[in-house]
Amino acid sequence: MVVATKTANAKPTYTKLVSKEGGTEYDLLPLHVCEETFAPLEVAYDYDAIREQVSRESIAAGPKSIWRYKPFLPVTGDVIDVGTGMTPLIKSNRLARRLGLKELYIKNDAVNMPTLSFKDRVVSVALTKAREFGFSTVSCASTGNLANSTAAIAAHAGLECCVFIPADLEIGKVLGTLIYSPTVMAVKGNYDQVNRLCSEVANNHGWGFVNINLRPYYSEGSKTLGYEVAEQLGWKLPDHVVAPLASGSLYTKIHKGFQEFVKTGLVEDKDVRFSGAQAEGCSPISQAFKEGRDFIKPVKPNTIAKSIAIGNPADGVYALDIARKTQGNIEDVTDAEVIEGIQLLAETEGIFTETAGGTTIAVLKKLVEAGKIDPDESTVAYITGNGLKTQEAIQDYIGEPLAIDPNLDSFERAWQRSRTLDRLEWQQVLV
Amino acid sequence: MVVATKTANAKPTYTKLVSKEGGTEYDLLPLHVCEETFAPLEVAYDYDAIREQVSRESIAAGPKSIWRYKPFLPVTGDVIDVGTGMTPLIKSNRLARRLGLKELYIKNDAVNMPTLSFKDRVVSVALTKAREFGFSTVSCASTGNLANSTAAIAAHAGLECCVFIPADLEIGKVLGTLIYSPTVMAVKGNYDQVNRLCSEVANNHGWGFVNINLRPYYSEGSKTLGYEVAEQLGWKLPDHVVAPLASGSLYTKIHKGFQEFVKTGLVEDKDVRFSGAQAEGCSPISQAFKEGRDFIKPVKPNTIAKSIAIGNPADGVYALDIARKTQGNIEDVTDAEVIEGIQLLAETEGIFTETAGGTTIAVLKKLVEAGKIDPDESTVAYITGNGLKTQEAIQDYIGEPLAIDPNLDSFERAWQRSRTLDRLEWQQVLV
Repeated sequence: MVVATKTANAKPTYTKLVSKEGGTEYDLLPLHVCEETFAPLEVAYDYDAIREQVSRESIAAGPKSIWRYKPFLPVTGDVIDVGTGMTPLIKSNRLARRLGLKELYIKNDAVNMPTLSFKDRVVSVALTKAREFGFSTVSCASTGNLANSTAAIAAHAGLECCVFIPADLEIGKVLGTLIYSPTVMAVKGNYDQVNRLCSEVANNHGWGFVNINLRPYYSEGSKTLGYEVAEQLGWKLPDHVVAPLASGSLYTKIHKGFQEFVKTGLVEDKDVRFSGAQAEGCSPISQAFKEGRDFIKPVKPNTIAKSIAIGNPADGVYALDIARKTQGNIEDVTDAEVIEGIQLLAETEGIFTETAGGTTIAVLKKLVEAGKIDPDESTVAYITGNGLKTQEAIQDYIGEPLAIDPNLDSFERAWQRSRTLDRLEWQQVLV
Repeated sequence: MVVATKTANAKPTYTKLVSKEGGTEYDLLPLHVCEETFAPLEVAYDYDAIREQVSRESIAAGPKSIWRYKPFLPVTGDVIDVGTGMTPLIKSNRLARRLGLKELYIKNDAVNMPTLSFKDRVVSVALTKAREFGFSTVSCASTGNLANSTAAIAAHAGLECCVFIPADLEIGKVLGTLIYSPTVMAVKGNYDQVNRLCSEVANNHGWGFVNINLRPYYSEGSKTLGYEVAEQLGWKLPDHVVAPLASGSLYTKIHKGFQEFVKTGLVEDKDVRFSGAQAEGCSPISQAFKEGRDFIKPVKPNTIAKSIAIGNPADGVYALDIARKTQGNIEDVTDAEVIEGIQLLAETEGIFTETAGGTTIAVLKKLVEAGKIDPDESTVAYITGNGLKTQEAIQDYIGEPLAIDPNLDSFERAWQRSRTLDRLEWQQVLV
C-alpha cells in the first residue's frame, strides 16, 4: 500500500543508528548494541526532511493505521499493513468521576489489530524491516503478547516464524500463538532467561529477532502511541500520561513521539508529566525511582502481571530519567490491586484489559489518591493488552452467574435474591 | 458526538415499523412482532430523505465507526460511540491461493470494538435506542458474544444490565461478561429455551431487551457490515459473500445494506450472490435449503459452534429466500471442519477467529471445492468473532510448544527435531 506524503519520491527521513551512550554512529543494519559501550542503538532522523513531507492534513488523509506516520518510521518501500494502530482514545467520564479526575482518556490498545495488544505496532514495523533486510525467518523472546503478534503478522506476510516464551505463560497467550502454526519454544525459565538464550540464538541462526537484532527499528513502532494520542486530542499534548513499564521501551518511545511532533511543528511544546506503572512482584524501575537510584537492580519476577514481568529491563534507566525530568512518578501495586484495576476499568468503561492494564489503572488510582496527579490535569492512561488473554488471573475473583431453570419462577426468585444481596452490600458500604 | 450530515437539522430518515408479512404499520415504539400475524417488524425509511443527507464524501468524512452511516440507522440525537465498526477488510492473498480463488477478502469483526464480535454493532444501536426510549435497565438472550457486548457497552453508558445465557457456555464468554459486573443468569437449557424465557421476562419487567422488544432497531446495526464492505471496496459491491447463519438476521441485513446503498445512489446495482454457513450440529436453515423447503424445522443444537447454535432461527425463512433468489448456497460443515477452518485462516492470514468464523471458512472452502463459488468471483467472507473466546474448542487440536531448558544446546536439539518432523510430515504429504 502506498502512503500519502507531500512528495512522490520522498527523501529518506531516517539516516543512521546512534548509540544512546556516547553517540557512536552505525550504518542502518540489523544491529542493536554499540560495540564499544554495549549501550542500545537508536534510529536517528532528519527532522527537516520529515517536516517537508508531513502536515496535519497529510497525516489525517493517510491510512487508518500506524502507517499514516510512515515518514517518522524507519522503513522504506511497501509496508505490512494489517490495520494496526489508530485504536480509540476514549474520554472516560465514568472512570474519571470514580477517581476524582476532571479529564481522563483511555488509549485502548486492548483492541489493537490483529492480536489485541500494542505489540502489533512494533511487530508491524519490525517485520516490514525484516523483509527489507531479506530475513526469511523471524523470531522473538516474548512474555506472550509479542509471540501472538509476531506469529500472526508473520503468517499474514508469509514469513517463517520461531518464537520463544517462558514455559509458565497464560493458556490464552500460548494458544493465541500456536494457532498461527509457528515453531514455539517454551523455555523452562523466566523472561530474562528466555531473552539471554535468544541473544545467543540470534548470533548463530541468521534470523530476524524483532526485539534483539531488529530492536532499534522495532521499538520505534511504539512512538505511534504518542502520535495517535496527540492527533486524537486535536493536535495537542495531554498534561500527564500513565503507562506500564516492562523493559521501559514503550514509555520512552511515547515520550520520543511527543517530542518529534513538537520538533516537526505538528503540536505546540508543552511539559507533559510521565508516570509509570509496575507490579510490586516485578518492580525494579519503581524501586530505583523510590530509592533515588539512577541504576536498576535486577529482580526475579513474581506477579500475575506476566506480560510486564521483566526483571532486568533494558530501557529502565532511560525510563527513570524521563520520569524524573518531567516531574512524573513511578509506582507499583500488589496483585490484588491489579485485579481491582481490571474490574474498575471494566465496570466503569466497558473495557476488559489484561493484568498489565490492571496494573496501569491501579497505579493511576494510587497516584490520584496520593495527590501525585492533579484533578485538573488532562490525563491519558495507556491500556496495552486484552483481558481475554489472562483469564486465569481473574477467574476466581469475579463471581459466578446465577444458575436458574428455564422458567419465569426460577428467574424471579434469582432476581429477588440478587437485589437483596445488592441492597445488603450497599448497606455495608453505607455503614 | 455529532455526526456529519449535509444539513444541520436533518429530517428524520426512519418513519415507522412495518410487518415483514402483510405490511401492517406501527409507530416507532419498543415492539417487535405484528399483533395480527406475529411476523417480525422492521424499520422503514424515507430513502429520499437519506439521499438528501448523505454522499460518499459526507460518509468518508464521518467518524471511524458505524456512526458514519447514521442517516441509515433508526436513532435520533446523541449516539453511544465506542469505536464500533470500520473493522479491516483484508485482501487475503495467501488464503485465496490455498483455496484457488483470485480475489478474496476477509471482513474481520474478530477485532471489532469493544468486545471483538459483530454484536458490538447491533448493541451500539440498541442501547442508543434504549436510552432514547428511557429504559434504565437493558437485557438480552445470548449465546455469549451478545452478552459480552451488552454488558460492556451498558457499563460504558451507565445503564443497568441483566443478561441471560445458556449455562454451558465457553469460559471466555462467561468471564468476558462477568467482568463488567452485570447480573448474569445462566439458564439450564439451550439458547432457544433462554430466548423463550426472555420473552416472558420482557413482558413483565419493563426492560429494554436488545434482541426482543428492541429487535427491529438492534438488527439494523448489522447493515453496517454491508455498508463498510461496499465503501472499503471503493464504493462497489462484491460478486459473492459468505456469512454465518445463526438467527439469519446478520445475513439478511448485509443484503439490506447493499440494497440501500444502491437505492440511495452510493453504489451501482449488481447481482451479489449470498451464501450462508452453518455447523452440521445445528443446521436447520441448511437442511431446508438442501431439501427445497421454504420453512424451517427447528432442531436441538449439538455443535462446538455455540455462538451460532440457534435451533429455531427467527429470520431463517428470509435467509433461505435471499440465498435462492441471489443464486447463492447454504452449506454446513462438521465440527472437525470448523476447527480446520480456524487453523486455515490463522496460518494463512494471521486472523484468529472463534468457532463461528471457522464455520464460515470451512463452508467457503467446501463451496469452492464444489464449484459453487467461481474462482473469478470477488468474494467476501465475514468473520464475526474472536478465537480467544472459544479456546476450549481448539486446545486439544493445535499441538503444544516444544519444552526446552534455557540453554543453546537444548534449543538446538529441539530445533533439529522440529525440522525433522516437518520433513517427515512433508514426505507423508508427498507420498
